[in-house]
Amino acid sequence: MSDRPLLEQLMDALRCLPGVGAKSAQRMAFYLLERDREGGRVLSHVLDEAMERIGHCSRCRTLSEADICNYCASSKRDDSQLCVVETPAEVVAIEQATDYRGRYFVLGGHLSPLDGIGPREIGLDLFDQRLREGNISELILATNPTVEGEATAHYIGEMARARAIRVTRIAHGVPLGGELEYVDGGTLSHAFTGRRDF
Amino acid sequence: MSDRPLLEQLMDALRCLPGVGAKSAQRMAFYLLERDREGGRVLSHVLDEAMERIGHCSRCRTLSEADICNYCASSKRDDSQLCVVETPAEVVAIEQATDYRGRYFVLGGHLSPLDGIGPREIGLDLFDQRLREGNISELILATNPTVEGEATAHYIGEMARARAIRVTRIAHGVPLGGELEYVDGGTLSHAFTGRRDF
Ligand SMILES: [Zn+2]
Ligand SMILES: [Zn+2]
Repeated sequence: MSDRPLLEQLMDALRCLPGVGAKSAQRMAFYLLERDREGGRVLSHVLDEAMERIGHCSRCRTLSEADICNYCASSKRDDSQLCVVETPAEVVAIEQATDYRGRYFVLGGHLSPLDGIGPREIGLDLFDQRLREGNISELILATNPTVEGEATAHYIGEMARARAIRVTRIAHGVPLGGELEYVDGGTLSHAFTGRRDF
Repeated sequence: MSDRPLLEQLMDALRCLPGVGAKSAQRMAFYLLERDREGGRVLSHVLDEAMERIGHCSRCRTLSEADICNYCASSKRDDSQLCVVETPAEVVAIEQATDYRGRYFVLGGHLSPLDGIGPREIGLDLFDQRLREGNISELILATNPTVEGEATAHYIGEMARARAIRVTRIAHGVPLGGELEYVDGGTLSHAFTGRRDF
């Protein structure tokens, strides 16, 4: 604990949160101190518990309190479909937006040789074990449509094809409701190249 | 501690922060867990310390770890000026934006009889002691330009005038750089009524 005033330390600590700059941190600190000390105490306690007790599922690598997460433990999900994503947040996004009820595998990033992130760092040894279990009929690649995400999808796709598993990639293009004029060039180019009969 | 998943509890707890909705809370939770556990631990610790140890200055009522805050304790500030504000955040705003180096008094709100907030609840007994010390030559009213803030300013102004202390009110009007078209009607009306020779 430093000797600096606690109020300053609190504002600084709040800035570790994404999207929180100096001005928001100040507003948050004063709000908690003047209006919601109980909320601040609860946040402190839950934050500590979460940082200590939430780890990664030993089967799919998503965030989980238990050794095996609910997605992996559920007997109601389809073992024949496996969806590969980069982060746990993407698992939640897919669960909320789609009716997919297969299994997941979370890379925790993407291949990035220059940063020393190879197949082992994104859990592909564990992933290969999943493929060898032999019950997957469709591997869905949902890595991000970035250069690294595409390269990672390609690498993983080859692993699955080597075991004669069907590989699909989620579609990328102009977002629904998006206006062409405001879509970035890369997306538009991708959408154009990927056009289909209508 | 509830039985709900810790990740859900963390997202809920983060929503106690002003300006943080469900989507931001989710982003914050995943960010801390995936990328900055140390930042999360520090925030938890500082938050707990701050909620327990930051109280209010016994002289001016602003937030302070010590019984007497730095603004009150400093021998470099001018005892002849006293500025009255509603909240501690306003003290910081005035310190940052102006060269005022007098003393402060923080009401912690404004008079609101219907909510049971009378003179005692906003510390006017303590404030009256300050006036009776006899060294104040200017009382600056910096309560908010709301109906309640104006009523509170009026009430406090009368207390000071009863002791023959000069009372000033900070100016309200169109913000610098503000375009008339986009200023709210109340502000514009106030600015118009308060016009001066040019
Ligand atoms: Zn799992
Ligand atoms: Zn003080």
